[in-house]
Amino acid sequence: MASAFDERVRRRDAEAKTTGGATYGADLAVAGMLHAKVLRSPHPHAAIVSIDTAAAAAVPGVRAVLTAADLPSGITPYYGYIIKDQPIVAIDTVRFAGDVVAAVAADSEAAAAEALERIHVVYRVLPAVTTIDAALADGAPELFPEAPPGAVPRYGAGARGALRPRSNVSYEFAYQTGDPAAFDRCDHVFEDEFRFSRMQHFHLEPYVGIASATRKQIEVWTSTQNPFPLRRELARMFRLPENRVRVNVPLVGGSFGAKSNCKTEPVAIVLSQMTGRPVRWCMTFEESFFTNSQHAALLRLRTGVMRDGRLVARQSEIFLDAGAYSGASPLVAEKCGYRIPGPYRYDFIDTRCSCVMTNTTPAGAFRGFGGAQATWASESQIDMIARRLGITPYAMRALNLLHFGDPFVPGETAIDSDLHVGLDLVIDELGAIERTPNRGVGFAIGLKDGGGINKAAQARVKITTGGEVTIDCATVEAGQGARSSLCQIAAEVLSTPVDRVIISPIDTDQSPYDHGTNASSATVVMGRAVLAAAERVRDEVLRFTATALSCDPSELRLENWHAVRGEESHSIAELVLREFGNIGFQFAADGFQKAPLDERAPLDSPCVFWEIGWAAVAVAVDPGTGKVTIEKLVVSGDAGKAINPLVCRGQDEGAAMMGVAQALFEQMVFDDGILMNGDPLVYRVPLAEDVPVSFVSILQEQGRGPGPFGAKGFAEGGLLPIAAAVANAVDDAVGVRITELPISPQRVHRALFLQKSPTVGVTA
Amino acid sequence: MASAFDERVRRRDAEAKTTGGATYGADLAVAGMLHAKVLRSPHPHAAIVSIDTAAAAAVPGVRAVLTAADLPSGITPYYGYIIKDQPIVAIDTVRFAGDVVAAVAADSEAAAAEALERIHVVYRVLPAVTTIDAALADGAPELFPEAPPGAVPRYGAGARGALRPRSNVSYEFAYQTGDPAAFDRCDHVFEDEFRFSRMQHFHLEPYVGIASATRKQIEVWTSTQNPFPLRRELARMFRLPENRVRVNVPLVGGSFGAKSNCKTEPVAIVLSQMTGRPVRWCMTFEESFFTNSQHAALLRLRTGVMRDGRLVARQSEIFLDAGAYSGASPLVAEKCGYRIPGPYRYDFIDTRCSCVMTNTTPAGAFRGFGGAQATWASESQIDMIARRLGITPYAMRALNLLHFGDPFVPGETAIDSDLHVGLDLVIDELGAIERTPNRGVGFAIGLKDGGGINKAAQARVKITTGGEVTIDCATVEAGQGARSSLCQIAAEVLSTPVDRVIISPIDTDQSPYDHGTNASSATVVMGRAVLAAAERVRDEVLRFTATALSCDPSELRLENWHAVRGEESHSIAELVLREFGNIGFQFAADGFQKAPLDERAPLDSPCVFWEIGWAAVAVAVDPGTGKVTIEKLVVSGDAGKAINPLVCRGQDEGAAMMGVAQALFEQMVFDDGILMNGDPLVYRVPLAEDVPVSFVSILQEQGRGPGPFGAKGFAEGGLLPIAAAVANAVDDAVGVRITELPISPQRVHRALFLQKSPTVGVTA
Repeated sequence: MASAFDERVRRRDAEAKTTGGATYGADLAVAGMLHAKVLRSPHPHAAIVSIDTAAAAAVPGVRAVLTAADLPSGITPYYGYIIKDQPIVAIDTVRFAGDVVAAVAADSEAAAAEALERIHVVYRVLPAVTTIDAALADGAPELFPEAPPGAVPRYGAGARGALRPRSNVSYEFAYQTGDPAAFDRCDHVFEDEFRFSRMQHFHLEPYVGIASATRKQIEVWTSTQNPFPLRRELARMFRLPENRVRVNVPLVGGSFGAKSNCKTEPVAIVLSQMTGRPVRWCMTFEESFFTNSQHAALLRLRTGVMRDGRLVARQSEIFLDAGAYSGASPLVAEKCGYRIPGPYRYDFIDTRCSCVMTNTTPAGAFRGFGGAQATWASESQIDMIARRLGITPYAMRALNLLHFGDPFVPGETAIDSDLHVGLDLVIDELGAIERTPNRGVGFAIGLKDGGGINKAAQARVKITTGGEVTIDCATVEAGQGARSSLCQIAAEVLSTPVDRVIISPIDTDQSPYDHGTNASSATVVMGRAVLAAAERVRDEVLRFTATALSCDPSELRLENWHAVRGEESHSIAELVLREFGNIGFQFAADGFQKAPLDERAPLDSPCVFWEIGWAAVAVAVDPGTGKVTIEKLVVSGDAGKAINPLVCRGQDEGAAMMGVAQALFEQMVFDDGILMNGDPLVYRVPLAEDVPVSFVSILQEQGRGPGPFGAKGFAEGGLLPIAAAVANAVDDAVGVRITELPISPQRVHRALFLQKSPTVGVTA
Repeated sequence: MASAFDERVRRRDAEAKTTGGATYGADLAVAGMLHAKVLRSPHPHAAIVSIDTAAAAAVPGVRAVLTAADLPSGITPYYGYIIKDQPIVAIDTVRFAGDVVAAVAADSEAAAAEALERIHVVYRVLPAVTTIDAALADGAPELFPEAPPGAVPRYGAGARGALRPRSNVSYEFAYQTGDPAAFDRCDHVFEDEFRFSRMQHFHLEPYVGIASATRKQIEVWTSTQNPFPLRRELARMFRLPENRVRVNVPLVGGSFGAKSNCKTEPVAIVLSQMTGRPVRWCMTFEESFFTNSQHAALLRLRTGVMRDGRLVARQSEIFLDAGAYSGASPLVAEKCGYRIPGPYRYDFIDTRCSCVMTNTTPAGAFRGFGGAQATWASESQIDMIARRLGITPYAMRALNLLHFGDPFVPGETAIDSDLHVGLDLVIDELGAIERTPNRGVGFAIGLKDGGGINKAAQARVKITTGGEVTIDCATVEAGQGARSSLCQIAAEVLSTPVDRVIISPIDTDQSPYDHGTNASSATVVMGRAVLAAAERVRDEVLRFTATALSCDPSELRLENWHAVRGEESHSIAELVLREFGNIGFQFAADGFQKAPLDERAPLDSPCVFWEIGWAAVAVAVDPGTGKVTIEKLVVSGDAGKAINPLVCRGQDEGAAMMGVAQALFEQMVFDDGILMNGDPLVYRVPLAEDVPVSFVSILQEQGRGPGPFGAKGFAEGGLLPIAAAVANAVDDAVGVRITELPISPQRVHRALFLQKSPTVGVTA
């Protein structure tokens, strides 16, 4: 039989998705359901003086109107990963333009929309802070004069977290390792500042959920990456036992980190409790921009080096714009701060990353999870230092790169890819460019500790009488192909065609437990659980078969639902029917994968694997307009072992294009806290014409990942190095250094102007 | 902590069921669903000449009309347990008055009903056979001139099955053990004939199912006792892999065996495939009478005894009225034939039981599953023989009863209750009656091999961070309280309050595999699987806790989600949070229970346990009307260990009242194949006033069952002995022997008349 990892194996969901047959969250309907819509604040910051809902409630078809006054007693109406500060609907105060003020459930979306128009809210406008700088200014207005409840996660050696260390900072992560005196030994210490712009996830499927709830029991059908953590959060908020909350998850139509923790669910639940009916809330596409975003950031790096380019010490001060509510920000801050050293050796690392609250759309988990911000600053500065020292960026990296097996920091998982190999690959593939004016090359390497919060994954593999295989697991399919890869892993172990393997729907009442589909973890962490379950069920089948054939299991091997012994081949289906009669049977076994805690690791447990992204880019800069054109882009990641090569390639190229967007185009633009481009027609995502004319992705299979068959996670690496590689290439091309994203024509043009006219006295 | 088996523990579903909150199959709705109705044959037997559906299809709201001509090619449109002879809709021939001829799916039930009126069918009426005797008569019209496909189950020593051994007999089971010469040694050989009438299950929830299907995938929500066998049957019919068929089962509103194999599902599936919409078919209550029934029977017993009453040999010839289609009849025939010896020792047993096809409502699984027919005849004859020999019925039984540990027949599981103890208990409780004229007492013992087809059960027990417990298993709650008992078993093992335990919904995509909820098997077979899973997860929790506390698991015990070591008590929730962070965890373990096959057992595998029903009854007979009044009824069963004493009592009393109905009232009455009383207003079920004034159930806990904590199955025994006990009491009271059920006033009155006027020459 052909390998289940063959290049030609199609995604299991390919046919359904390309023929319109796939069921996404937005396609779900529950009999008798009502439709919800919400009223959003027009002000970035305001006190709610009064809300009059009488006219709204009188609209025909309206079944309930929800404001803070209607929240049931006996619940905890706030959510958030670490800090529970986001209310189901605004309580007394709105904190960003788009904050949810009231919600309506009606027989139709049209009736609900009509009712929204008739809700009369009196606001008292409060001064707002809408940028990191404004929020940190002395005497700045505060979003949360009183600290919301929260708990610092447990950290290991050298790391610590602090709740609300200063006004408008909800959380600060800090980490230090090595010898603080290292800076004193440096030949040079360079200080640079970088700014990172905020993208929106731009998942094509909007936020959507349906709830059917009473005060004793909740069921939701929702687009989420994290079914079990969501169950836990809802159980906490609604003060129910966890086993009274049931979360069903269909195909998710894109997420990129967005669909985690609470989104539509709490509003839908309360409206369902109020009406006794299921309630669906499907946001508009535009409402995504009011719901979640990436973290804009201000990053200050202080890096000490020897004159030969050897890196010695790095200190960082990072501020993430968390927006109006905390969400996943503390966890993103932790990762951003932790990853700022990049893939290099230092004698001393001192890093601090803070979540700054602003009156803007909340920021949350986003592909890269802090790694994009860190890589942007770090890989830009590495290049800048090389140029200042007069050595090549390549030599600078070659000198300092961690080697395979080196620790990232003490206690952490060792680097599990050969970083030099990948760097040489992308540079070789980029090749020599014609050194005409205004053209240049750049490269960068991003790394992130992968596996994320998924420290425990359970899976089950079952085989029917006829040899059809079902995997039970709660890994969410959000377009990344994870469920296909898991099917392939089981098929390979069971020597069965991949198309005989399916994964059952996600239902927290039934699915094996899992910490969530995060941080490129599915193939490695859930993959190991599936691998273990498949191996166990294979062994069970072989034991059964051996008993039936009166031989030893070791004499048998499985192939296409036959037990093969030498030249003999026995139909297992027939042996099952002989044993159980025509009622048949179903074999089943579980697999469990748990990452151990280790207090020597700064983040309390070592990472599962390292995800690395290498990029090399050739750009041309138009000096007249500042427009940067990527003439060739080479990206590469190390999949360890590519379970589905085509899916891996798709992930890497998709991530790289998101990196191109980050580098050149996308940015949520606020004007005094009012989002100016929260609309798919205005918001500038990459177009087909923005795909570089020459775009090469190189799939490395270094074979040393901890996942099944040597696999590593592979979905975010491609994003990490692009922005810095482009900035480095622009510098190479035209000698200006852009330190703020996106690298827009205006910004480049202005830098070119300043470069030529340094004496004009315009301040940057 | 109080035991989870405390008398005061309420059923887990008590509140929902008594407040209207429970979701039965008939309560389910799927968004966008259509409603089905079917057209039924008015003739017991006819050829379909033509069907014109044009006018029906034109009714507004009608989406599809299904006749045999519309059945998709590439499927196998017949179903049945052993013999696949029942079509989805009639193909060419209708075989009973009520047979499904056509089906309509429409926007509303009213539109579907209107369409039915406009379907024009031309029939050619065929001669019908509507009784066992008529079907077996020479030259009788045949229901199936050609044998439908089927396969004989595997039998062990002395047993055999035969397909279609003669005209209108679909299946014959035969079994012989011991010395055939034993009859020659007998002092007396008695031959008697008994007739058993046909009841209807009378489940309050009608047959109901919803299907959402394409040609590649099927999902049903349906009231069935056997989710996985149904999945297998539907996969076979629609030629799909089993893992492409998903069966969801809600609370079942009564079944008593009725809701197994296909009922509403195939019609709903085809209509869904035709319309691209989910289709619900909820039958009317009256349609139950056209769908399923108990087996009427003709039983001829030939029993050889010694003059002291010792039983020596028994030969039986049994004919079950299977109705128009085979359904479960072959399996019922097997059990009826197998059980005919009753709980007594014989030197020779020779038994044969045949399924006779008649043009009447199909018969199927019914509480007792052949045991009620067997016990009726056997326990009547035991009494008759005792009277003929001039010994007391008690002495006759005491002499011949099997003892604890005796084999029922060679290779079979030994008797696991003390039968004498139960007999003495019910007789003692009945006490002495006032021996006035026309009053009498009778008693009887029924036994059945329990556990049925449930030879393999899988379960899973899971515990959340907070200690809430969820059981995954496919045991169907049909009112018998099985799911409550399983919760109690897990609660006891985990030392947790029962109300913290729930069972997740049944979904064949996800639920652990199980052969079905049959034959009182749930508490024993699934109970053992749940017990094993609970013990395994308990051990896993203790190992986790011991690691966290740096001690040995053997030092710890679990109590209310605390690990107790001597005087110390540690919150396990806190230990989990310390290990996994606030995301938490869920422990899980599986349990598996498989009954081994054993070819020495006649039925291929020994039974799991023996279910015994003892009854003693005091009756008064009105000689003027023949009316029999039960003045006192004592029933008893041996639960081994009563997991939920109140539920056990309810089962035993409910079963006994079903026995009273069988004895005195209920009967489906056909007139030339036309059902005369298929209506809840006319069909005579017991009324509140029919409950005996003195009605005692004695719950035995002999403690030697194979289930958890010594439990045995306990849901059918109470039904078995009642009819014979009443007949025996009537004989004791007025000296007439009724050998045909029900023991109606007319029948008793006529027997009294014949007793007084034996010379009138009226033939019986």
